[in-house]
Amino acid sequence: MTTEAIASPTTTRIGQALDRLRERRPLVQNITNYVSMDIAANALLALGASPAMVHAPEEIDDFGRLIQALAINIGTLSSDWVAAMMLAATVAHERGTPWVLDPVGAGATRFRDASVQQLLPLGPSVIRGNASEIMAVAASCGLGLSAARPKGVDSANTTSEAEVLSIELARHVGCVVVATGAIDFITDGRRQAHLANGSPLMTQVTAIGCSLSAITAAFCAIEPDRFDAAVAALAVVGIAGERAAAQTARPGSFRTAWIDQLATLDATAITSDLKLS
Amino acid sequence: MTTEAIASPTTTRIGQALDRLRERRPLVQNITNYVSMDIAANALLALGASPAMVHAPEEIDDFGRLIQALAINIGTLSSDWVAAMMLAATVAHERGTPWVLDPVGAGATRFRDASVQQLLPLGPSVIRGNASEIMAVAASCGLGLSAARPKGVDSANTTSEAEVLSIELARHVGCVVVATGAIDFITDGRRQAHLANGSPLMTQVTAIGCSLSAITAAFCAIEPDRFDAAVAALAVVGIAGERAAAQTARPGSFRTAWIDQLATLDATAITSDLKLS
Amino acid sequence: MTTEAIASPTTTRIGQALDRLRERRPLVQNITNYVSMDIAANALLALGASPAMVHAPEEIDDFGRLIQALAINIGTLSSDWVAAMMLAATVAHERGTPWVLDPVGAGATRFRDASVQQLLPLGPSVIRGNASEIMAVAASCGLGLSAARPKGVDSANTTSEAEVLSIELARHVGCVVVATGAIDFITDGRRQAHLANGSPLMTQVTAIGCSLSAITAAFCAIEPDRFDAAVAALAVVGIAGERAAAQTARPGSFRTAWIDQLATLDATAITSDLKLS
Repeated sequence: MTTEAIASPTTTRIGQALDRLRERRPLVQNITNYVSMDIAANALLALGASPAMVHAPEEIDDFGRLIQALAINIGTLSSDWVAAMMLAATVAHERGTPWVLDPVGAGATRFRDASVQQLLPLGPSVIRGNASEIMAVAASCGLGLSAARPKGVDSANTTSEAEVLSIELARHVGCVVVATGAIDFITDGRRQAHLANGSPLMTQVTAIGCSLSAITAAFCAIEPDRFDAAVAALAVVGIAGERAAAQTARPGSFRTAWIDQLATLDATAITSDLKLS
Repeated sequence: MTTEAIASPTTTRIGQALDRLRERRPLVQNITNYVSMDIAANALLALGASPAMVHAPEEIDDFGRLIQALAINIGTLSSDWVAAMMLAATVAHERGTPWVLDPVGAGATRFRDASVQQLLPLGPSVIRGNASEIMAVAASCGLGLSAARPKGVDSANTTSEAEVLSIELARHVGCVVVATGAIDFITDGRRQAHLANGSPLMTQVTAIGCSLSAITAAFCAIEPDRFDAAVAALAVVGIAGERAAAQTARPGSFRTAWIDQLATLDATAITSDLKLS
Repeated sequence: MTTEAIASPTTTRIGQALDRLRERRPLVQNITNYVSMDIAANALLALGASPAMVHAPEEIDDFGRLIQALAINIGTLSSDWVAAMMLAATVAHERGTPWVLDPVGAGATRFRDASVQQLLPLGPSVIRGNASEIMAVAASCGLGLSAARPKGVDSANTTSEAEVLSIELARHVGCVVVATGAIDFITDGRRQAHLANGSPLMTQVTAIGCSLSAITAAFCAIEPDRFDAAVAALAVVGIAGERAAAQTARPGSFRTAWIDQLATLDATAITSDLKLS
């Protein structure tokens, strides 16, 4: 006799979202940092989406007609690229295309904070960062009393420290906010969820967080409820991470295994592995 | 009793070209997109060529004296990079250095089409794209009636749809045209070939097509007949893909296995595996 | 009965430096070429340092307050990036932050040589290149009679040819000079060392040399004696390379195995494997 896990409504919805993503194969434009381009494109392809890295101002309007979602990541910033991000977010905003903001290194420099402040009025669907980044974005919006301790692009805070500010930020901007860490926190200012999937190895490979933001954009392309889209992206990325960590404890091999897991993950894996509360 | 494959003149030539490439180790300059830089450089190194990514206008003339071939790929375009591409193609054209054009995303934006139209008069040796891209380039040259349905950077057409336009484009530009897909089509406007090597996994890893274009440039450096050079590049890349797919069905592992296969492939493998007609 | 290797003072110091690096997790800013960004960031993370790729002039002063070391690599140069490098090196110089210069392709173009000449007065702690690059930098400083034969970014010289010029260059600039090859040569103009660790496979994977430069910066962050820091970086990178080569002879797999080895290497491995003279 085999035991069959009973899918909750949420796990069912996540599994269906994954199936829909693979069926529709959304085209996701990424204006992202140089470090993450290879892994983010491969992660989107492995999952079943269609990635495109396009950033020239001359073609953003044309390309904006083709895409189903946009991911903007400020990792390796420069003034030219900020201009491209502004233009792409404006086009997405006008056309109702969902877009995700990954505020890499927010709080570390005034240039980053100013760039984020320029982008926020253009209506991101989701802001996804580590706890320190989310706290820094909230602080630069004048929310709470900043306790963010930025250290480059790695987080110096836990997500539980970031919960209150995440909720305030979600309400202030009118979007979903995701603070990732050992426990991920997701909120749209009204609903909240915690996700315990993932592996510490995910912080030992560069740009898995950036790839998560790109994958969040892909789920926004096929799931109108951005809260559900964010939860689905986190679930898929975290469960793939856990399964990869079961194969290897070393970061080079883990990177490869994580991509492999993204390609093979299905609704059954989500039902059996999801740690959502 | 073992059966020994009899090498046809073509398989012999491809094997000899590969040996010559490894012996001469041509220096191939790449002005390519950010996504492909890592895998294209590693693919060239694995095969036995010497890659260099150089794009500053200030050094293109100096560097042009050192190279044996040039690959230009418009994946992550910007006006600065188009200027660098124009300059490098001009220098290559003047010196008789072979160069390959990879028109990534042609047809998706007017900026891409305009950039390709600027580059074509500079005499590419080979144009290498997926079926939709080749059809879009042909259409923007005023050839045929465009049936290209661009969807980001992935092809929405089969290469059989692209054959007639490929031949017209080859004659119009005076170069070899390669349309890649499940069956690759190669033509110089007079000769034609079909290659059935490869694996669907090759489309699940980003920038294997870009790497093929870089490898085509490497073969042009050691094979004066650009039709033969293009066939050799396709054969090597496709056979490495098939052999990698025999090792794994997952895209992360496949990427690694494909690089490994490029390094170990030899004339015997080509003789036994080539599917050319 | 087991035989225990007796750690020499040097192997002990290298092991201690590695432990200190993992404990302090220095933040290393990289202004590096596009090809190397992924592998350099992953190598730093695997080893235990914290990488950040930041190059916008607007944020270099702010970010310079957070970092413990800086790596500058001129691989994919452009005038904008040279300006960013100059600014970052100036900030590092003023604040006493150690910084490493990787003069990729020095000697290949006048633009590269001129860029290196602009950077040298800003006091690099270490210059790390292959033999040809180091000889070209020395020659462009007016030292010796140049015998460098640049061929793209691969070396055409052995490190033994580069020894005299390395010493002259170290004295001229007042820094540590590292010429890498089958035998690595390290000098501060007074002391000299040779390191025989490593594997030929390290030249078949792109940007392992660039990653070494980034790792050298990480060791400079925690080891005030830059000669010792450079030796430690070379030892760790070379021993990881040897151990990876014991696992696989193929370049794709080797890249993954090398990252894995960086993460698992410890003082015992250094004691048993170090080939320093």
